[in-house]
Amino acid sequence: MKIGISDLSALSLGAAVLGTGGGGDPYIGRLALRRQMERTHVEPQLIELSTLSDDALVVPVGMGGSPSVALEKLLSESFAAAPLRRIEALFGRRADAVIPLEVGGVNSLMPLLTAVATGVPVANADGMGRAFPTLDRTTFGIAGVSPCPLVLLNEHGETVIVDGVRTHARTEKIARAAFVEMGGACACALYPMSGRQAKETAIADTLTLALEIGRAMEGARRAKRDPCQAIVSYLQSMTPRRHARVLFDGKVVDIVRNMVGGYNQGSGTLQGIEGFEGTVEFAFQNEYLYIRQNGSLLAVVPDLIAFLDRETGDPITCETVRYGQRLKVIGIVAAKELCTEAALSICGPGGFGLSDVYRPMSD
Amino acid sequence: MKIGISDLSALSLGAAVLGTGGGGDPYIGRLALRRQMERTHVEPQLIELSTLSDDALVVPVGMGGSPSVALEKLLSESFAAAPLRRIEALFGRRADAVIPLEVGGVNSLMPLLTAVATGVPVANADGMGRAFPTLDRTTFGIAGVSPCPLVLLNEHGETVIVDGVRTHARTEKIARAAFVEMGGACACALYPMSGRQAKETAIADTLTLALEIGRAMEGARRAKRDPCQAIVSYLQSMTPRRHARVLFDGKVVDIVRNMVGGYNQGSGTLQGIEGFEGTVEFAFQNEYLYIRQNGSLLAVVPDLIAFLDRETGDPITCETVRYGQRLKVIGIVAAKELCTEAALSICGPGGFGLSDVYRPMSD
Repeated sequence: MKIGISDLSALSLGAAVLGTGGGGDPYIGRLALRRQMERTHVEPQLIELSTLSDDALVVPVGMGGSPSVALEKLLSESFAAAPLRRIEALFGRRADAVIPLEVGGVNSLMPLLTAVATGVPVANADGMGRAFPTLDRTTFGIAGVSPCPLVLLNEHGETVIVDGVRTHARTEKIARAAFVEMGGACACALYPMSGRQAKETAIADTLTLALEIGRAMEGARRAKRDPCQAIVSYLQSMTPRRHARVLFDGKVVDIVRNMVGGYNQGSGTLQGIEGFEGTVEFAFQNEYLYIRQNGSLLAVVPDLIAFLDRETGDPITCETVRYGQRLKVIGIVAAKELCTEAALSICGPGGFGLSDVYRPMSD
Repeated sequence: MKIGISDLSALSLGAAVLGTGGGGDPYIGRLALRRQMERTHVEPQLIELSTLSDDALVVPVGMGGSPSVALEKLLSESFAAAPLRRIEALFGRRADAVIPLEVGGVNSLMPLLTAVATGVPVANADGMGRAFPTLDRTTFGIAGVSPCPLVLLNEHGETVIVDGVRTHARTEKIARAAFVEMGGACACALYPMSGRQAKETAIADTLTLALEIGRAMEGARRAKRDPCQAIVSYLQSMTPRRHARVLFDGKVVDIVRNMVGGYNQGSGTLQGIEGFEGTVEFAFQNEYLYIRQNGSLLAVVPDLIAFLDRETGDPITCETVRYGQRLKVIGIVAAKELCTEAALSICGPGGFGLSDVYRPMSD
């Protein structure tokens, strides 16, 4: 399957929903990808995870850090190719596929840029099934795949390779120290793995999930139906059925935010409208962490919580949510790979310092 | 020429003199090298700089950071080989020679350890002709050789490679950020260069200079002559004559030190004895920076200032100089490569924040 230029708006819309408030705005990525596809007449090739051979070299790629002026440069052809080329040089062989680190936000598009620049296909899968604020919260890492060698490259072409580090915490620490010095936004390649490891650890079919979510929203918009409800209906129609529902419909009546340790942290309150009574509290750390009513959780990480404009369905990120906005909150149950005990210890409430116990969101 | 086990004490003694108070104590390095040479029956091969072919791959290696518990581990065979092996892998070819980053202190012995572990010969030369507190003050860098790719490896085998960085300041900054996170002591390989670049930029014959200084001192000790004077006599007998003299003979009557930004900084006063009148002031930043009497410089960086026990000639480092010590101060004029305008801007007084103008020490 090829991704065409006409797919990009739906793909980036769906990726923003799966970004659950974070993951970076796919808008600039979409523009860069469209420009590159128009110029080269190359369409990135999507391949199913199951078709990878066991001994394939599969390389997760993406962007680390906060969107900034650097972003546009990093989305250019040479930067999209460079981290993968470094990994290939280190392994002394060509990669057989790239794979998104995370499907949420701009990182759904980075691998497609790499694919256009290099001709390497993209596996229809990812390592989070959503977005997370750190590079170590991946199903690859949870299953024991080493993040090393890890390649970071900034918009000046400055490159740092981290290798030989045994734990995720140490890798994150060393890489982050270099990362901060490099300006805080880098193109990355890490967790290089075999096709077998990819098949065993990645979350399958997530790029097409983003695409279909976006298509459902666009279809609803054209038909003047509710794009938020269209997401829920699409997910519920999947086989197997994906649990999802509108958790709340309300207005932002309180919002507090601060930057802590490079994270966009904050919390707020929504006041219900149109059939939704009372208020709900929410919190975020780059992505939305929970939504709670009268002390009871409506949804909590790793379940996906998307804030959408209640009229247009446009995703509202944690950076742009503000007082007075009227929005709908959609909850989507997390991929099963994030719900194991090992995964929940870093991707669940405890991994974000919450005392709550994870219970999958109900329909 | 081979370096034998019987050469090691003279070599490390001379290297400590050329360390001008810094560069790390060669003692542990000497023990590690002797143990490795005894075990493997391999003697490191020394080759003259002029014999390198223009297209040879020459790799400076050494230790960065402060001697610590990590040092002993880093001096083991595998760690002495690892940074060079990384550079070889990046270049896709074997190195033809290693070369000391600096001849002063423990870094005169690291390349010999690498040579024993890998069989690669050592060029009889270095990039400083002494020791300096940062890795960027090298004749390689001054002449425009890129420090990248730069390999850092700590005692856990954690590895960071920095590449594609255009300036020394940026390289130092990115590498240091990773370095601090890695524990502060690393085996390093950087400034990989061609044989032609090595011949054009390195300071020749410095390993044998260290060896001969040590031999002169050991000879004087055996003959019950003054080992400090023996250094001066040896240097003055060289062709061409190397300017050197005993600058002062005195007792430490004042010493202040503090750690600033990871540097061992301080200053002190010597009270003259045996024919040396009055007092002199000195200062250090890892290495001795200047010695000054009544406001006039007796010697200043990049000239070499060695503090030696006035009886045994044992070098006294900036870390161990203390109140009450009786010592002789030897001045040795810097290698000519450090006296160009470009070199002085980073290796001269101004490069260390002093307002003095460099004038080569007189005999």
